[in-house]
Amino acid sequence: MSTERTEISNLGEFGLIDHLTRNIEIQNASTVLGVGDDAAVIDHFGKQTVLTTDLLVEGVHFDLIYTPLKHLGYKSVVVNLSDVYAMNAIPTQIILSIGISNRFSLEALDEFYEGVYAACEKYGVDLVGGDTTSSQKGFIISLTAIGEVAPDNYVKRSTAKKGDLLCVSGDLGAAYVGLLFLEREKKIFIESPGVQPDLEGETYVIGRLLKPEARKDIVEFFAANQIKPTAMMDISDGLSSEILHICKDSNLGCVLYEEKIPVSEEMKKAAFKFEIDPTACALSGGEDYELLFTVAQEDYEKLVLNEQISVVGYMTGPEEGAHIITKGGSKHPVTAQGWNHLRS
Amino acid sequence: MSTERTEISNLGEFGLIDHLTRNIEIQNASTVLGVGDDAAVIDHFGKQTVLTTDLLVEGVHFDLIYTPLKHLGYKSVVVNLSDVYAMNAIPTQIILSIGISNRFSLEALDEFYEGVYAACEKYGVDLVGGDTTSSQKGFIISLTAIGEVAPDNYVKRSTAKKGDLLCVSGDLGAAYVGLLFLEREKKIFIESPGVQPDLEGETYVIGRLLKPEARKDIVEFFAANQIKPTAMMDISDGLSSEILHICKDSNLGCVLYEEKIPVSEEMKKAAFKFEIDPTACALSGGEDYELLFTVAQEDYEKLVLNEQISVVGYMTGPEEGAHIITKGGSKHPVTAQGWNHLRS
Repeated sequence: MSTERTEISNLGEFGLIDHLTRNIEIQNASTVLGVGDDAAVIDHFGKQTVLTTDLLVEGVHFDLIYTPLKHLGYKSVVVNLSDVYAMNAIPTQIILSIGISNRFSLEALDEFYEGVYAACEKYGVDLVGGDTTSSQKGFIISLTAIGEVAPDNYVKRSTAKKGDLLCVSGDLGAAYVGLLFLEREKKIFIESPGVQPDLEGETYVIGRLLKPEARKDIVEFFAANQIKPTAMMDISDGLSSEILHICKDSNLGCVLYEEKIPVSEEMKKAAFKFEIDPTACALSGGEDYELLFTVAQEDYEKLVLNEQISVVGYMTGPEEGAHIITKGGSKHPVTAQGWNHLRS
Repeated sequence: MSTERTEISNLGEFGLIDHLTRNIEIQNASTVLGVGDDAAVIDHFGKQTVLTTDLLVEGVHFDLIYTPLKHLGYKSVVVNLSDVYAMNAIPTQIILSIGISNRFSLEALDEFYEGVYAACEKYGVDLVGGDTTSSQKGFIISLTAIGEVAPDNYVKRSTAKKGDLLCVSGDLGAAYVGLLFLEREKKIFIESPGVQPDLEGETYVIGRLLKPEARKDIVEFFAANQIKPTAMMDISDGLSSEILHICKDSNLGCVLYEEKIPVSEEMKKAAFKFEIDPTACALSGGEDYELLFTVAQEDYEKLVLNEQISVVGYMTGPEEGAHIITKGGSKHPVTAQGWNHLRS
């Protein structure tokens, strides 16, 4: 962060908005009117509009002690877009509101918006509006994403069918292990402020936490290969929890194979340093922002073309419940413990 | 508020969302998919989509000491819809996210949502999504409204023309005077908790603050009478400030007549109790949520059909600046002091 400091109060609210939005370039022809009026106007002839929102609160969703503001801006957008991709839709616009206390300088906000705009550019979305206000305590971020999808081509959580293949993108659990490292270093830093952080070799897992990506590529792969998942959602709370959502909403059970759950070598090594089971990280760790989806069995041949997709199990009737078959061959119910459980 | 208290932590996040959304009835055919999935899906064939958002923070935008939660829920929606009407558009959906600290009971949240749903019903909009999270301090409300408008029929702030009539809906300044009463009673209550509030006879001004309405009727009147304002915005920060926005964005000046500014008898009487000038309240008081708009002179005959519309002045060239002609006939520049100025 720069050592310069401009007080936000010197700009006033409108000056601040002007400042923060001065570099916007409209990317989508459908963006008829963006920032600067009461509302944004978007043209969606012959498409369906997808909307999703996230509210992120300092101290609840992020810790500024180890989260660079630029990364926070980037991640805030990505997390929101991930929900749009999880609908099998393409995000086109976002709206961003922030609440800030007077401890933030303009330079700090600029860093945050740098990350926001970097994500907008990478994912081809326009920032079209928002609201800026003060907060009594901490940083508050509210993001709404709008996306489009061909009529009735969106994918819900509730429409998986018995016999469908259960699939995930990428690898899981790394963001959680990255968090463990950062929490450890934070503790050391608080106790001994002179000690330099020891994060050598952990760039992959920490990067997965601080700068996640949304799986635009997977949704584009579906479109290019005429695959329509039967159900889909993004993995923000850990694989177990999300699988149970799909089972419950689709009124099905499932079988999940531990050996098929994709985990990276970096995550495995890092998990062992904390003496925790990599599979537990994948099942219960959150914030990977991969996609969890089900496809009809006849799509299997198309799926294997993509190395970023792993088939991890299949859907069963509801009477069979949701189970995981461990590497040792034993069978256990899938339980949604989330990462709060792992933390304690 | 009921004396019963259910801890939100007993429900869990998903239980809470289920609880809060259990009574939703979809009102618009265009709402293809509402609450319960990663995002909402909206069909907008042949229309343009309007989006707007507000972030409301306890202690900054509202004071729960004198704001009933049901009114807060109602007002949060109305304030957001007002921005859609200010685009000459019709709101169709809203997305609502809230951040709450553990001092809120489920019953308290229910009251808030009662107000939200009352506003949704009154204005014919669907709540289609949102996010619920905890906050470290205070209540945080993030609302996004989506509306539709016939292609290119939306109205910006920047398109007023020289010679256009400057108009406002309803009456102005009452919400500000209502705030003065409530702030006075709060002070008395804090100093002497046993004293009952003395708000006798002030229901109009207090109602204008606590339960404002958005001017749906005005936008419908425009449509029914083939009037398209040349510029429009809603009055949230006081008439002066908003007029200056239209002047600046349209690169024009204006003449405003004090005697034409609509004020209610109730507001005038109440302002005199505080020994302040009713015109100052109308110019600088906020939160009236009336519409400020400009129309071509040839629309004057149509406008006078509506008693809720007052012509308060006209637009001039930019070189003439923005001026107010007082009742005494003197001419002063319009300045944007906002109500913070009045407060101090």
